[in-house]
Amino acid sequence: VVMGWNKMKHVATSAWQLGQSDPRKIIFSVKMGLALTIISLLIFLKEPLKDVSRYFVWAILTVVLTFEYNIGSTFSKGLNRAAGTLSAAGIALGMSELSKLAGEWEEVAIIICIFLVGFCGTYLKFYPSMKAYEYGLRVFLITYCIVIVSGNRTGDFINPARNRFLLIALGAAVSLSVNIFIYPIWAGEDLHALVAKNFIGVASSLEGVVNSYLNCIEYERVPSKILTYQASDDPVYSGYRSAVESTSKEEALLGFAVWEPPHGRYKMLRYPWKNYVKVSGALRHCAFMVMAMHGCILSEIQAPPEKRQVFYNEIKKVCSEGAKVLRDIGNKVKKMEKLGNDDFLFDVQEAAEELQHKIDKKSFLLINSESWEIGNRPSHEVEPQDLFNNDEETQFLEYKSLSEAVLDLRAVRVPNIWGVNSAPEVKPALPASNVEENLFKKQASWPDHHSFQADSIFKRAESKTYENASSLSLATFTSLLIEFVARLPNLVDSFEELGEVAKFSDPPELQSPE
Amino acid sequence: VVMGWNKMKHVATSAWQLGQSDPRKIIFSVKMGLALTIISLLIFLKEPLKDVSRYFVWAILTVVLTFEYNIGSTFSKGLNRAAGTLSAAGIALGMSELSKLAGEWEEVAIIICIFLVGFCGTYLKFYPSMKAYEYGLRVFLITYCIVIVSGNRTGDFINPARNRFLLIALGAAVSLSVNIFIYPIWAGEDLHALVAKNFIGVASSLEGVVNSYLNCIEYERVPSKILTYQASDDPVYSGYRSAVESTSKEEALLGFAVWEPPHGRYKMLRYPWKNYVKVSGALRHCAFMVMAMHGCILSEIQAPPEKRQVFYNEIKKVCSEGAKVLRDIGNKVKKMEKLGNDDFLFDVQEAAEELQHKIDKKSFLLINSESWEIGNRPSHEVEPQDLFNNDEETQFLEYKSLSEAVLDLRAVRVPNIWGVNSAPEVKPALPASNVEENLFKKQASWPDHHSFQADSIFKRAESKTYENASSLSLATFTSLLIEFVARLPNLVDSFEELGEVAKFSDPPELQSPE
Repeated sequence: VVMGWNKMKHVATSAWQLGQSDPRKIIFSVKMGLALTIISLLIFLKEPLKDVSRYFVWAILTVVLTFEYNIGSTFSKGLNRAAGTLSAAGIALGMSELSKLAGEWEEVAIIICIFLVGFCGTYLKFYPSMKAYEYGLRVFLITYCIVIVSGNRTGDFINPARNRFLLIALGAAVSLSVNIFIYPIWAGEDLHALVAKNFIGVASSLEGVVNSYLNCIEYERVPSKILTYQASDDPVYSGYRSAVESTSKEEALLGFAVWEPPHGRYKMLRYPWKNYVKVSGALRHCAFMVMAMHGCILSEIQAPPEKRQVFYNEIKKVCSEGAKVLRDIGNKVKKMEKLGNDDFLFDVQEAAEELQHKIDKKSFLLINSESWEIGNRPSHEVEPQDLFNNDEETQFLEYKSLSEAVLDLRAVRVPNIWGVNSAPEVKPALPASNVEENLFKKQASWPDHHSFQADSIFKRAESKTYENASSLSLATFTSLLIEFVARLPNLVDSFEELGEVAKFSDPPELQSPE
Repeated sequence: VVMGWNKMKHVATSAWQLGQSDPRKIIFSVKMGLALTIISLLIFLKEPLKDVSRYFVWAILTVVLTFEYNIGSTFSKGLNRAAGTLSAAGIALGMSELSKLAGEWEEVAIIICIFLVGFCGTYLKFYPSMKAYEYGLRVFLITYCIVIVSGNRTGDFINPARNRFLLIALGAAVSLSVNIFIYPIWAGEDLHALVAKNFIGVASSLEGVVNSYLNCIEYERVPSKILTYQASDDPVYSGYRSAVESTSKEEALLGFAVWEPPHGRYKMLRYPWKNYVKVSGALRHCAFMVMAMHGCILSEIQAPPEKRQVFYNEIKKVCSEGAKVLRDIGNKVKKMEKLGNDDFLFDVQEAAEELQHKIDKKSFLLINSESWEIGNRPSHEVEPQDLFNNDEETQFLEYKSLSEAVLDLRAVRVPNIWGVNSAPEVKPALPASNVEENLFKKQASWPDHHSFQADSIFKRAESKTYENASSLSLATFTSLLIEFVARLPNLVDSFEELGEVAKFSDPPELQSPE
């Protein structure tokens, strides 16, 4: 008994939590109960409906089958049902009249008709354009068969059909009025909220991705759920994934929203719901870049942390500005406000430019100059001091340690400055004096990468390939970030189009102060 | 009449084409017609079913509502329906006995019960784990209301319920046997084919993307459908898009496939359908890279064609090997064969290595060395060059204006070696004789980018940012391609897991020749 009590308590709390997370679910359930109660009450009042209440089954069927979560789908199902029922009844009556002409072959004719109608009705469903009417076709089949069979059984077509129709209309009336007049749940509102939510999700993912990239957070072991693109509770991943995955949900909501009459904030005939989906698609186009950046974190090819630090501020800036743009647009979608007059993307584009300039200046960090065919130009003489007139942070250390190694002319253990390869490794013995000058020069012109490159000699060819790619991976990350920024104008365009056609309000700063 | 005839001809041809594209659609429609015919015939044979045939409606309802396209969904709907009906009938009978205890408040008690059941039944649907049973809950509600209302009307619960149940069972039997024994359509087979098809789609997309990248095919105007991620008939786009988009379809098919008994080539209890979805997810993980590469083509930031040519052979190789791997795995999925013993990825990884080596050697092509802080070390005899050592963003302007101002030489047209900037442009005046040799060297070692960089002075800052990124965009493309290769082992792993648990056959070369 105690166990049963605990279990009940568990069920009750989980039900309560579900209701807390979205109270509309409770409201909807109450509405459903209410609709069923009303229809039962009407049936119990036998007096006014005495004749037809034999067919009460139809009223209940109609209520349960057309009572959908949001108004749009209730309408679309209700209309489907009505159209299916009416046309089926009409055709069935016509057919039964015709089949009487067949005389003693009447039943055969009816059977053949049933087969033909069953075939055509089912085949029609496969037309892509008929997809929205799938339910209507099903109802059509049911009604047709019932009318024609029952007519054949009793010889009376008109009365049962009329009574059934009355009860279906009654059920539809109850279902529609309860659903519409008591706390209606609109598909359009859901679509609107979903699109706004996607913006926030992508913005958080962007920040998450960039932060973990800059802080060199790697996955110990990439969750196999990510590798096989399944839902996972990684916040960075779930943010963009839900935006990428919401296509089918949006399509469904769009399909329902177009059935809904103007309501609430959407006071317009033929409200441009399609544009919300388009904005969301443009957002998705940006989200793919976030996804590709996340790929840089998941990748085996990882840029050394020190190099990431070089671009830290610029990347950070682009990221925070980019996330800000997404959040701003998301909020404007939510509040249904147009953009202001000022250049909305100015800050983020400026930040992207700064990043690009920095990359231009420091692009030697991004590549592996060791193996250049033309890279090691001889200069006439090189003083080590010459190196010091640049402002590179890390190269001194590198330079120093390597020159120590070179000058000793022995195989020494080089302290692992970059920290990428944490296992201590033995450097290859360096060639002696006659090569020294040349090597020294090489050091001077391309101070970094040397140790990295030298390490990889010992590794398998495959992993070497990936290691050589490591610095380019930083280039990839920044390119993707810049491409993300380059895709923002497209997003802003589609948002402005939405604002235009959906008649969004002007932002507060542009409204005349009256 | 002629118009009507033409229209009919048009409808007929399109119906024919639809049937041609997938003959199973015709077969399914025939089956549906057949099932309806059989059930009508049974009802017309009034003799053996005389008593119950009043309730024939239920048989027809059951047939139409549970007759689904594939076996899995027919089973799941049928079982849902059975469970819903039985449990509802049981609870309704119990409730009605209980409500009799309420004496004259009996009807009130029944109404309250209806409300409560309606509420709970609807609320349960929102539990994520109950999603598969949504239909069952709906049937439960319908049956409960009908049984309790009709019992209350006539005072007889048992007989109608029994008869209804008999006819529902009859309908389900007809529907199931027609669906299973006549040319069954299996959800599992569809899932299998979908996964195999996705491989081919991604492989073609990969080839398409790489080829158009190497041949510098740009979109005149990127279709706005791509920018807003809608379906489009661009073959490169639709290939990976359908793989990326098939998640929900796969989930649905998986949900049905698990209901199906062992059949055909899937002779195993608890066949691991889930692993097909996992393989498809791993493929999707690769497809995202193809998508990102496609992004490089869509991008405003385009690498100059000549540079792409430098890596032409290597990129081409990686691409064709990668596509080959995808096609091979796709075919093996189709034929349900395991991988051979030899290293399946050897060729593609070798090709990726070659590409990486080439990049290492030529990485100066990928960056903008002009603005390096440490790149242009002063040779002693060259004065103006010293200017390059500062890291101001304006250095080019400075350089240009200074050299013009100081040296004031004739403006020469430098032949445009790389052909990137097709419009003839006036180069900044070059320093005279003493610098000439040095300059020549520079031209030799950094032949590109110079003119490019010089151009961008005249352009708006924004577009300059993007132009500077142009060569890095090639780096991005190659990195993404290499990352694509790096993701293949994960795909092969999940395929091998599938082959293991689904007991794929050994490949022909490994089978003992008996």
